[in-house]
Amino acid sequence: MTTSLARKPLLIDALQYNKPERARFKEWRDGGVGCVHVTLAIWENARETLAVIGEWNRLLEHNADLVALATSGEDIQRIAASGRTAIVYGFQDTSPFEDDIELVEIFYQLGVRIAQLTYNVQNRVASGCWEPDENGVSKFFGRNVINEMNRLGMLVDVSHCTERSCFDAIEYSSRPIAVTHANPSEFVGTDIELNRRNKSTPLIKRLAERGGVIGLSMYPKIMRDGSNCTLDTFLDMTAWTVDLVGVDAVGLGTDYYDGWPESEIKWWRAGRWSRESAIPIKGFSAWPSWFQSSVDFPKILEGMAKRGFSEDEIAKIAGGNWLRLFDESFAPQQVQAEASAA
Amino acid sequence: MTTSLARKPLLIDALQYNKPERARFKEWRDGGVGCVHVTLAIWENARETLAVIGEWNRLLEHNADLVALATSGEDIQRIAASGRTAIVYGFQDTSPFEDDIELVEIFYQLGVRIAQLTYNVQNRVASGCWEPDENGVSKFFGRNVINEMNRLGMLVDVSHCTERSCFDAIEYSSRPIAVTHANPSEFVGTDIELNRRNKSTPLIKRLAERGGVIGLSMYPKIMRDGSNCTLDTFLDMTAWTVDLVGVDAVGLGTDYYDGWPESEIKWWRAGRWSRESAIPIKGFSAWPSWFQSSVDFPKILEGMAKRGFSEDEIAKIAGGNWLRLFDESFAPQQVQAEASAA
Repeated sequence: MTTSLARKPLLIDALQYNKPERARFKEWRDGGVGCVHVTLAIWENARETLAVIGEWNRLLEHNADLVALATSGEDIQRIAASGRTAIVYGFQDTSPFEDDIELVEIFYQLGVRIAQLTYNVQNRVASGCWEPDENGVSKFFGRNVINEMNRLGMLVDVSHCTERSCFDAIEYSSRPIAVTHANPSEFVGTDIELNRRNKSTPLIKRLAERGGVIGLSMYPKIMRDGSNCTLDTFLDMTAWTVDLVGVDAVGLGTDYYDGWPESEIKWWRAGRWSRESAIPIKGFSAWPSWFQSSVDFPKILEGMAKRGFSEDEIAKIAGGNWLRLFDESFAPQQVQAEASAA
Repeated sequence: MTTSLARKPLLIDALQYNKPERARFKEWRDGGVGCVHVTLAIWENARETLAVIGEWNRLLEHNADLVALATSGEDIQRIAASGRTAIVYGFQDTSPFEDDIELVEIFYQLGVRIAQLTYNVQNRVASGCWEPDENGVSKFFGRNVINEMNRLGMLVDVSHCTERSCFDAIEYSSRPIAVTHANPSEFVGTDIELNRRNKSTPLIKRLAERGGVIGLSMYPKIMRDGSNCTLDTFLDMTAWTVDLVGVDAVGLGTDYYDGWPESEIKWWRAGRWSRESAIPIKGFSAWPSWFQSSVDFPKILEGMAKRGFSEDEIAKIAGGNWLRLFDESFAPQQVQAEASAA
């Protein structure tokens, strides 16, 4: 499927967490996706994360016709222009850093460019959305990690964090941060337990004021009407968010996943810190009819065009805003400072 | 001290294993050392080696006036030309790779360019010089690791390996290998137990035939007359080795160490694999009077000149041979193949 858009915008999905395999890479090409931020780790420690990177090294080698690793905005543009998909490495928890501030740089050296401070629960760095709202970024290790990420050029992500942790991260970070995959709770409603990770209106406004971007998600549990959410409702949410914070602060972050066995869900929900999931496991959610996989991205762009978004606006929401944020976030602080001065 | 040489040759020390600290970097500058291959790990596993690299990252940042990391021959030349010392990361054992073939590339990504197959004893990859002579490179993991090092551009070092492991590595490796720090046993004699790691004449000849280089060492336990070895005797050994295999296969690899507490010796000798050192620990050996530290390198170059080595020969032995080998060894195999074809 192709869209009626005169120019094909750079499309960036700010979060997918698939089992790493070629089938997804083909879907990305078929859907015209120029860049995907992928998740390497949630509960994995440093050593386990090295094994994941090793697996990705082989995957990148064997699928060089479809994908390549990007560690800069320039990489993303070059790889996407070659017809392939640029992969940005990220973590959904700071567990790979363990308790060692030096590991932030080690993983930066290995190509990681985005890290979420915590995934759902409290860790050494921050507090997750299942914890009490008032729990924030830790005073010592949490601030150290944010400073170190700022210095190196690793983007802070707070999608699964408490409201307090999100506000703290925005304030403590000297550089803009990201909500790579969450929706506005005021639009979606707060009747579903899991959508505690949607974000409040004051938070989204503060994020945008400081140059951050929010990636709107198709994950059924955080959309209005769940799996029955229509494309129209998703586009309503897009328009609502753009009205709230402007067209420069909104992107896409599907939270799409595929290829995992159901047993993986327990790992996501409970890691090694609980013998049981705190939330009953009922299998994978059904993706909405209009977004069954990355192949369906053109439908969303088409929908935006029909809804009356201009081509410039669509280009920003589809990927331009993420490209701007990634480009300015991934360079080391000194380099960035020199570039600003020039 | 300066030498009477008309041009100052690039000086490369193919092995030092100091406690990482600024005092050594100053000695390197004072001794005119352009490049040092340093040891990051002997018995350290993957996670522990990340911590060592983290420590080096900070050291490199705080001592950027004196040192910088080199991952290519070009880096070495550029850094040395700037008046600083180029540091090449290496391992003296493959223990950081644990049992995981993918970790070779992970550590290559983190800058490691040389790895000795094993340190004194048998491991998954090869057998060390304290083991029976007939033990060689392992058929599965050992050959896999050598292939992977060949592919990536990580130089195989066999200084502490058994004769059989050395010969095996030379045959299995598609690229030249190195003895970064050992002496010819025929010249030194075999009366000292520890100098089992000196190399036989047939081995040094085979190493050189295949493009490898041997680094002659000032470590007292492997020199003729130990700590009382004179500079004249060291120069005799240098001339003897050059006569044996030609001036293109001989370099320097001091095996110098400083800054460690005596307790470190037990770690080197016994790691975690023995509760006691197999060899009685009698404190650190005294370095010979003419090589108390890297500051004394000019004395050796001066000695070579007096002995009648030409400036070209001195340039090769002092660093030119290592630069040639490092330059051709550190590029990935494909890149190297393309360069050869061009």
